[in-house]
This record gives sequence, C-alpha cells and structure tokens, in this order.
Amino acid sequence: SRSYRIAVIPGDGIGVEVVPEGLRVLRRTAELYGFTVETEQFDFASAAYYQAHGEMLPPDWHETLVGFDAIFFGAVGWPEVVPDHVSLWGSLLKFRREFDQYVNLRPVRLLHGVVSPLRDRTPEEVDFYVVRENTEGEYSSIGGRIFEGTDRETVLQETVMTRIGVDRVLRYAFELARQREKKHLTWATKSNGISISMPYWDERAETMAGQYPEIRADKYHIDILTANFVLHPDLFDVVVASNLFGDILSDLGPACAGTIGIAPSANINPERTFPSLFEPVHGSAPDIAGRGIANPIGQIWSAAMMLDHLGEHAAGEAIVAAIEDILVDGSVAKTPDLGGSATTGQLGTAIAERL
Amino acid sequence: SRSYRIAVIPGDGIGVEVVPEGLRVLRRTAELYGFTVETEQFDFASAAYYQAHGEMLPPDWHETLVGFDAIFFGAVGWPEVVPDHVSLWGSLLKFRREFDQYVNLRPVRLLHGVVSPLRDRTPEEVDFYVVRENTEGEYSSIGGRIFEGTDRETVLQETVMTRIGVDRVLRYAFELARQREKKHLTWATKSNGISISMPYWDERAETMAGQYPEIRADKYHIDILTANFVLHPDLFDVVVASNLFGDILSDLGPACAGTIGIAPSANINPERTFPSLFEPVHGSAPDIAGRGIANPIGQIWSAAMMLDHLGEHAAGEAIVAAIEDILVDGSVAKTPDLGGSATTGQLGTAIAERL
Ligand SMILES: CC(C)[C@H](C(=O)O)[C@@H](O)C(=O)O
Ligand SMILES: CC(C)[C@H](C(=O)O)[C@@H](O)C(=O)O
Repeated sequence: SRSYRIAVIPGDGIGVEVVPEGLRVLRRTAELYGFTVETEQFDFASAAYYQAHGEMLPPDWHETLVGFDAIFFGAVGWPEVVPDHVSLWGSLLKFRREFDQYVNLRPVRLLHGVVSPLRDRTPEEVDFYVVRENTEGEYSSIGGRIFEGTDRETVLQETVMTRIGVDRVLRYAFELARQREKKHLTWATKSNGISISMPYWDERAETMAGQYPEIRADKYHIDILTANFVLHPDLFDVVVASNLFGDILSDLGPACAGTIGIAPSANINPERTFPSLFEPVHGSAPDIAGRGIANPIGQIWSAAMMLDHLGEHAAGEAIVAAIEDILVDGSVAKTPDLGGSATTGQLGTAIAERL
Repeated sequence: SRSYRIAVIPGDGIGVEVVPEGLRVLRRTAELYGFTVETEQFDFASAAYYQAHGEMLPPDWHETLVGFDAIFFGAVGWPEVVPDHVSLWGSLLKFRREFDQYVNLRPVRLLHGVVSPLRDRTPEEVDFYVVRENTEGEYSSIGGRIFEGTDRETVLQETVMTRIGVDRVLRYAFELARQREKKHLTWATKSNGISISMPYWDERAETMAGQYPEIRADKYHIDILTANFVLHPDLFDVVVASNLFGDILSDLGPACAGTIGIAPSANINPERTFPSLFEPVHGSAPDIAGRGIANPIGQIWSAAMMLDHLGEHAAGEAIVAAIEDILVDGSVAKTPDLGGSATTGQLGTAIAERL
C-alpha cells in the first residue's frame, strides 16, 4: 500500500498553531483514500531553536531531511529574537536552494465563498498559477559595501541568472501550461529598464516558446503586469517569473483573489532528487500568534498541494473541494479573519469532517 | 511677469497626439493665471529620429535642453523600429540620469468620476504619493555574460546603491510627508530576501526616520506591500521606494485607483540644477496610435505637476480640478477608454474650456 514519510517543521508563531490542522486533514484523507502517512516532527527552523543553539538548523539537517518524501512547513520568523534575513537565509531559503526546489508554485484562485477586493470578478475569471524561480536571480547573497560610513558609501548586490536555472523553470511552466485548457503562458520581465539580466530572461523564454508552438506565449513588463493582475486577472493562465518578480506576483495574485491569508505554496524539486517543501503563503504573524485564532486554510491547502505532488491527486482535490465547501457554508463557524469567532482547531476540524 | 521656457518632446505614438492637448491646457492656464510660457519643440527621442540618425538623441542634446525651465515629454518607444531598451536607455533613462532627476513622483488618487477596480473605495481613502528613486539601484547597466551559448552561461547584473543616492530620495520623501496632513511615510523593502542592498536601504531609512520624530514611518516588504495596495490603499500617505520597486508601485497604484491610463509623473531634480521632466505614466501605445482616440488626461495632469514644480500652484490645482470636473460630468463626451466616442482633441478642448 502507498505510504509517505513527511518531515513536519512547524517553525514560529502561528506556524505552530496551523500545522496540526494541516496534519489533521492529511490523516483524514489518508484514511479515506487508502494510503498511510508517517510523520516526524522537528523543532529546528524556529526562533526558539535559534535561541538555544545560535543557529537556525543543526549541522546534520541535510542528512536528517533528505530521505523524506516531502517537508510540511509552517512559517518561520520572529524578529524580536532573530532578524528576518538571518532566520530566513538560515532555514527556508537554505532548504529551497540546497534541496534545489527550483519551482515555487502558487495558485491564484478566487474560491467560491471568498470575497475578492476586486469588483465583479467571478471564480471562473480568476484561476491561474504563478511559477516562480526559487533558487537564483535577484536572491543572491553576492555583493557588499565599500567606503562604509562615508559619503562615498556604495553597496553592490548581484543578480545571477544561469542558463540552467532559467531554462528549467521556464520548461516547468511551459509543461504546466501545456496541460491546461487555455494553453497560455505569460512571462514577467523588465527588459526595458533592467538591461542585462532581463533581456537574457526574454531570450530564453522566446527560445523556449519556439519549442511549444501549441502554447500562446506573451510577455509583460512587471510594472504593467501587476496593474493587470488588478485590472484583468482573467488574462492569465500560467505566469512565470524570476525569483523576485515571482515573489511579488505570488502575494499580489492571492490578494486580488481575496486569499492572501489562506493561499498555499509548493517549493518543488521536480526531479525528486530532494524532498519538496509545502507551506502557506502567510508568515508567522507575530501579531496574532498564541491566541488560537489563526486561519488554518493556507496550511491545509498546502497539504493538498503536497498530496498532489506525491501522486494522490484525488485526495488533493478533495481537500480543496472541502475548503471551498466550508467557505460557502454560512452555517459553519469561521476564524475572525473570515468574520467569525471560531478557533483554529474548530475550523480545521470542520474541514476534516467535510471530506 | 513670470515666464517659463519649456522644451517640448512629443516622442512616439500617442505621445504626438496627447502633447498638443497638454500644451493647449498649459496656454489657457497661462492666460488665466498671468504668466507666460515659451515653448520649443524637438523631434528627437523618437523612433523617426532614430531611423534618420541611428541615435535617439543628437550629440548636443545636453546643451540644447539644459537651459530650459522644464521638459514636457510625451512618450517614447516604437519596438518595430528600435528595441525598447535601446530607445529608453538612449533617451528617457538618459535624461533622468544625466539631468539628475533623482525623484520620480507619482500621485495615486482616486478621482471623483473614475471607477476604481477595487470594491467600495472612496476618493478620500485613496490619496497618496509614490516617491521613486530614479537614477540608480536596480536600473544599472553594469554586468554581463560569461560562457555564452553553453550550459554554463551565466548572466550578472549589478544593483548599485549609494549613500548619496539613497539619502537624498529618502529626504525628499520625508519632507513631502512632513508637509502632508497624515505625516505618514512607508518605505518599500525586501530585506528578508535580498540580503545586501535592501538591508542597507532599511538602515538609511531608519536613520532618516530618527531625524523626523513627527513622522510616523513604517516599512513593508514589496510582496505584501503590493498586496496592501489592493487590500488597504487607505493605509498610505507617502510611499518611498527604490528604482525598481517604485516603478512597480507607481503602475500598480494608479491601476488600483482606476487611473492607469491617465496618471501623470514628474521626474524631478529638486536642486533645479537641471530641468525636471514631466510625462504621463502611460507609454506610446502603438496599438491605438494614429487614430486620434488617445486619452490626453495623463499629459494634461503632467502639465499640472509641471506648473506646481515651477511654483504656479494655483494653476496646477485648477487643472486637476478641471480634469475631475470633466470626469464627473456625464454630459461631456469622453475618449473610448472612458466609454465615450470623443477624440483626443475634443476631450483636451473640454478640459481647457472648463478651467
Ligand atoms: C519604460 C520604462 C523604462 C520606464 C521605467 O521602468 O522607468 C517606465 O516603466 C516608467 O515607469 O517610466
Ligand atoms: C520570507 C521571504 C524571504 C519569502 C521570500 O521572499 O521568498 C516569502 O516572502 C515567500 O514568498 O516565501
């Protein structure tokens, strides 16, 4: 029988509160769909671990995690204890890079039962994916300062794009577009202003487009692309972008769909050489942590993406359907962000029971 | 009597169609407010000039323009004739850098009579400025390619921030915030992911904030900031950002306010060592060029910003009031983008007459 080994890393803040709800739903689908899930939980990649050890991760984190089928991640970040760039470069961004999770995949979907901040948009009109390059580009740690503390102070930061890095994420996006009904791919660029890296990105995208004649491919500069997420979300099907542009678009997209607090994400190593990592788009939310009121849907939806990645497509779809069902059902108590007074656990339980 | 010398550069596409309407309104305000405007028109910074000369600008462009009080610019770009990064780095981006127009100022205002794509937002709630660094940062032309055409192909592009460059745009933004009622400044960052340049930007902003205790200053990472433009435009008063982030925010902001086609912008050299440049946010729009249907409001509103910069505050305000008046007035024919069938000239004339 099918069995999956999942590393569970709750992390910080509301991560600790929503991960158990994700696991609750995961276990319930396992029962219903006839597979087993074996989980092991880790306390690293958290501020508490950092306080105790002066590092975000133990030295053997790579060997510890590499054998798992997937990593189920909550959220990391607690700026009072450790600066964000330290906690993130010391954990999440390290996982992405060292486990070569070069695709960050985030659905932008206006779910039934969710109110979009955009006027008059229907669920049929807002349904696309952002495919973000997740290992290189603008997120390099190369650069530095010179003439510190003087008027000549100058700071350099390198953007690094490689043919391998660019081509593989473009290929993933074109393959995804090919499987979808609209067969439409949009790439984000800024080649009119950023005159070396972005024209390169365009060149590779144009070359790749030539290999997929059945796909309608177009490009938008990032400035007008963000405008079009607001004005015409119906224009998009698969949107592929560099690390930074993908980061922006995959927050903006869910905001337009009204799902910024509940959107999921997958950090994927498509070759399965390393485990992929699944996490909600939201962060650790120090402002509401510890009160048991965090919305667990982002974490639960991330479990659905994880199951999909593991090949349990029916189970993954069932979770999304259950989420949508609960959102539409006015008789179910919701968490405060959705206008209700339910706890994290109550909403998680409601979704598990709806399956 | 007050007199201003204005260099007029229509550029490409609809630039050529909307600039005369901007001038029409400008001349009318001059009559009404008792100043004179002397204009000289130039045909460079256009695809036609490029075709004839193989360059976007004549060798003596700097001497030619430097003595003017301001530059009134249409739009540049005609990709069929000259690639965008060539036409832009060869003209607009050159003006910004060589005339040290280090502030790009763009209002985000939901005008009366304009329909925002956001649900339930009122003009009182959407009224802020984006202040964009306009000469350095992510828009550097430093970098290159190595191992071209092979699997090792690697492309580097440098982001360059200087203390002088960062501090002066921050100071401008803090001074602007100080003059406004809410006294609230937000700076855009991405210091959790982009770990060298952006933490530097934060440091300088924090230092500057210390010098302005009367201003409430906060920071947002660019991803969640774009989300908040959609979800909570009422949170903002003055938003200051690096060159790239400012580019994005100053398209997204007007999109949220429903004014992407009519928003203005000012490229300002605050010391007045060099002329400042005023242009609509929209581009040359090859798809509708030549049909006389382009909306001239962005160009006319840019004239208002120009007058404001020249010290003609009352005249500038009168133009914005006339624009708003015309937008609200259902009996005035509008251009097709606003749902009417008026020509560019008819709408421009209507605004000039409303003054
Ligand atoms: C055309 C382009 C180079 C330019 C920019 O990125 O600065 C434009 O988008 C703008 O905002 O003025
Ligand atoms: C927290 C931050 C470093 C991270 C990123 O920028 O990648 C986050 O915004 C995300 O999108 O996962």
